[in-house]
Amino acid sequence: MSTGLRPATPDAEYASFRSRLFEAGLLLETGIDGLYGRSDGYEEVVRALDAMVGRWASELGATVVHFPPVLARSTFDHTNYLQSFPDLMGSVHVFRGGDRDHAELLRRVEADADWQALLEPAEVVLASAACHPVYPLCTGRLLDSGRLFEIHGWCFRHEPSVDPARQQAFHMHEVVHVGTPESAEQHRDRGLERGLTMLADLGLDMAAVAANDPFFGRLGAIMAAGQLEEALKMEGVTPICSTERPTAVMSANYHRDHFGLPFSIETPDGSVAHSSCVAFGVDRIALALLHAHGLDPARWPAEVRTRLWP
Amino acid sequence: MSTGLRPATPDAEYASFRSRLFEAGLLLETGIDGLYGRSDGYEEVVRALDAMVGRWASELGATVVHFPPVLARSTFDHTNYLQSFPDLMGSVHVFRGGDRDHAELLRRVEADADWQALLEPAEVVLASAACHPVYPLCTGRLLDSGRLFEIHGWCFRHEPSVDPARQQAFHMHEVVHVGTPESAEQHRDRGLERGLTMLADLGLDMAAVAANDPFFGRLGAIMAAGQLEEALKMEGVTPICSTERPTAVMSANYHRDHFGLPFSIETPDGSVAHSSCVAFGVDRIALALLHAHGLDPARWPAEVRTRLWP
Repeated sequence: MSTGLRPATPDAEYASFRSRLFEAGLLLETGIDGLYGRSDGYEEVVRALDAMVGRWASELGATVVHFPPVLARSTFDHTNYLQSFPDLMGSVHVFRGGDRDHAELLRRVEADADWQALLEPAEVVLASAACHPVYPLCTGRLLDSGRLFEIHGWCFRHEPSVDPARQQAFHMHEVVHVGTPESAEQHRDRGLERGLTMLADLGLDMAAVAANDPFFGRLGAIMAAGQLEEALKMEGVTPICSTERPTAVMSANYHRDHFGLPFSIETPDGSVAHSSCVAFGVDRIALALLHAHGLDPARWPAEVRTRLWP
Repeated sequence: MSTGLRPATPDAEYASFRSRLFEAGLLLETGIDGLYGRSDGYEEVVRALDAMVGRWASELGATVVHFPPVLARSTFDHTNYLQSFPDLMGSVHVFRGGDRDHAELLRRVEADADWQALLEPAEVVLASAACHPVYPLCTGRLLDSGRLFEIHGWCFRHEPSVDPARQQAFHMHEVVHVGTPESAEQHRDRGLERGLTMLADLGLDMAAVAANDPFFGRLGAIMAAGQLEEALKMEGVTPICSTERPTAVMSANYHRDHFGLPFSIETPDGSVAHSSCVAFGVDRIALALLHAHGLDPARWPAEVRTRLWP
């Protein structure tokens, strides 16, 4: 496993990467920065990465679950996401009116007025992280070994950007453990190591760095500093659009009781459960591979292809 | 291909189907009617159905594209969805405020007040149909043969229901043609026939019926009657939760110029392009199979298994 970054090169080297992705038809424009269609060739890489992470999760004996890209609002409320990342969330709003309200709605659409003000919050929000729906499945007292889940799916984060590695709607693949403080920390540490190895084996120049989540605002800066100081979050980074500021393509996060407490999850001895997750940003990994090995996966090094399509 | 329904049996026969799906762990509760997690065994059936539809689309030479579960709002505006189905759409709203607004947001969350009023419409809405993002790809003048796309993904429709076949977030798999009135109608007709055959070959008792979309309100009733009279929409139905009211698991729809006009798509001779789509509700098909052949796909008839996993 390589842990050193490539020698610094000017970001200009990467300036054309975005436009080459569109020219090659791997990504398709939608008119929105960070929202893209994908070719089947691109998705084939994503599917191979999902399968690769799945083989590791299967070795660990994880339970595979799938969830839609929207999350129950009641679950969202328990995650405290609004306190830390209000700017990233997406709330779903719906129309519950009758014929007369509909006429007013259409009048406003026609007049380019604020028709959305006639909507009401739905029972769901967009999923911000793949792991959120698994915590309600654990409410109650855990068995000895805790729980281990594999889950992947679409996430939404409202952060429009021209960086193709910062998409608003993207795939995330997670292996999540809920157990004791010790087992949660161990899952984070082992997952980080295994993840870095898997990605380095694909020919990516990986480095591990202590990191912080993008907590919002003035108070957020303090929370970020605390998270960083305690090394709760580790990221695996690799150059995609910049050598000097490599992109996080995976992270390993020890949540402490952040989910155990609000979702009332207990260890066998009755204490609050802790959790951790190892998250693979499969879209970012796909982009890192396209950057490192070229835009045609059929011509990637045989060793990389064999690992992806064994 | 069977086109007759089973002999009528009391709906009680199906009353326990929903609860058996949860007991078997195929679907997972989220606390929201119509929003469910899924086991990997369930998703394996969905993946097999996606692959089966994909083999047909590949025979036809369709271009495969993938899109996220959210759609550019500008594209949504062009679909006129708000006029016909305001009650089904999901608008995404986001927080664009600063520190002070965030404090007010959290104050309202704490007070159980309307914090969502502090949000603003995002650049995206939830995708209501898998095919919507392909029409902007066609803007301009088509070549002779028109365009053919295969696209599948998550759709959202706000219609909370305890019927497991009426989910708010579900998979849809479409084969979409954009071309002349003749070629669009032909795609609709051939797709209906082929789809019915594929599903009957899986041991489902299929019938074809002229249908209408669930247009909203008083005006909607008139639109529905018109659509029905002109047989623009055909559905393939099969019993899932009721024999008397079988469930639509696929549809074949001739849109006329509904998309060609707003997306400025022209045929080679400069007239407005017409379009049609053949849509497979893969979640509903999976449920119909589970209903028809039992809850353990490993024990389904060999002929069905071979067609799904060739």
